[in-house]
Amino acid sequence: MTTSSEKEKVILITNDDSIAAPGIAALVDAVKHLGRVVVVAPDKPQSGMGHAITLGQPLRLAKSNLLGKDVEAYTCSGTPVDCVKIAVDQVLHAKPDICLSGINHGANHSINVIYSGTMSAAMEAAIESIPSAGFSILDYSLQADLSEAKKFVTLIVSELLSKPADKHLLLNVNIPATSAEPIKGIKICRQAYAKYQEKFDVRKDPHDKNYYWLTGEFVNFDEGTDTDVWALSNNYISIVPVQFDLTNYEQKKQLENIYNF
Amino acid sequence: MTTSSEKEKVILITNDDSIAAPGIAALVDAVKHLGRVVVVAPDKPQSGMGHAITLGQPLRLAKSNLLGKDVEAYTCSGTPVDCVKIAVDQVLHAKPDICLSGINHGANHSINVIYSGTMSAAMEAAIESIPSAGFSILDYSLQADLSEAKKFVTLIVSELLSKPADKHLLLNVNIPATSAEPIKGIKICRQAYAKYQEKFDVRKDPHDKNYYWLTGEFVNFDEGTDTDVWALSNNYISIVPVQFDLTNYEQKKQLENIYNF
Repeated sequence: MTTSSEKEKVILITNDDSIAAPGIAALVDAVKHLGRVVVVAPDKPQSGMGHAITLGQPLRLAKSNLLGKDVEAYTCSGTPVDCVKIAVDQVLHAKPDICLSGINHGANHSINVIYSGTMSAAMEAAIESIPSAGFSILDYSLQADLSEAKKFVTLIVSELLSKPADKHLLLNVNIPATSAEPIKGIKICRQAYAKYQEKFDVRKDPHDKNYYWLTGEFVNFDEGTDTDVWALSNNYISIVPVQFDLTNYEQKKQLENIYNF
Repeated sequence: MTTSSEKEKVILITNDDSIAAPGIAALVDAVKHLGRVVVVAPDKPQSGMGHAITLGQPLRLAKSNLLGKDVEAYTCSGTPVDCVKIAVDQVLHAKPDICLSGINHGANHSINVIYSGTMSAAMEAAIESIPSAGFSILDYSLQADLSEAKKFVTLIVSELLSKPADKHLLLNVNIPATSAEPIKGIKICRQAYAKYQEKFDVRKDPHDKNYYWLTGEFVNFDEGTDTDVWALSNNYISIVPVQFDLTNYEQKKQLENIYNF
């Protein structure tokens, strides 16, 4: 990977809402003056895909003009993680300087980082030694006002590109929805223990058979003031540095004492 | 959740290879004398689905006799994570004492824990305060000899049920393939930094358009002798305790000093 400040930075962009989502256009727009932008994004929405990859069938890749003729963009028939893999191997033929994912239409704070296609794409890059960041806005509407979010994305990505980053750097950035009150600033946070309390809505189909819709209510079980949920509810942007070593080291120490395996 | 030793333990079982895979039958067989077993498993293979959930469409649930008439079993049309969610809310109407996932046909050690539907199902349970374990055997064949693996599964699950477990306990258990040499024992390990070096095999379809198959070679970048990859290559069963707080605390401390966000 070239880290020379002389050379134009290569910025790989993907998302999980598909290439047609306004969020990816906003992300491209926020950073395209910072380097050579290359987009490889899913050809259809992939929300909730987590770290899924396509194993049992091949992938397709197609050039796209959807983000304007001056933006090098491709669609991929697979998941967000597939997009990162195929971008590196078949489009760039090299590792980009940074990988950005989003802007996701909807929050990916707290435990949602685990379900998020947006964050899984960024994590895939970080595993591959490409510093990366996922961006999400706390507004599910495809008509959300992204202008304020874009300013902060430019600020954060400029800062990331200005310094030699840890090659496994992986940031989960959540941005409050645009409201009357301006965004107060940025907080470095830990992931809150907060999640959906889920229930299924049971309905009958026309053949009198049950089908089940996932529904749920978001509950914060975490009273800390250093969490992403706290920062966002106080109108700050939250940045959580994320790791992909899932070993629970504390439990590792205890396990041999507790169990007779 | 009832933890009284008087009461029969409720054991929820799922997997990602589908209810038709020999691995789930072996898992049921290994633990059914330890409590009331309830199976909710995908109705089709879901390998590589990671922590995907079904958001845009409803789920189906159907009773199954595939594991014998004495085993309470259901198929679900969704992902492994969906299976756990719907099992708790619509089948058990309560949290089980433990959730077991597998036995997966193929390894889920090192970085593969992140892509694995088997481990994501177990992680979903742990997030929901249900102690859980995922089991995988290092043999992709559906005809693999699981008899030795079953003995160790019985041992591990008996031990887990015999003590009050941390409600977020989540174990990633990988078992060497049956070979001439017997399994040496069990090691508590950390997740190795080892992964597939991936390439896409580019082919032409009958219409002369490219399609891309994911291929790759597994490479261990980690020289530690405390990793799951080391244990398995030395014919030990590896157990990695897994966490779902993905915050990188070390980087969190450094970030504010490095960047001017």
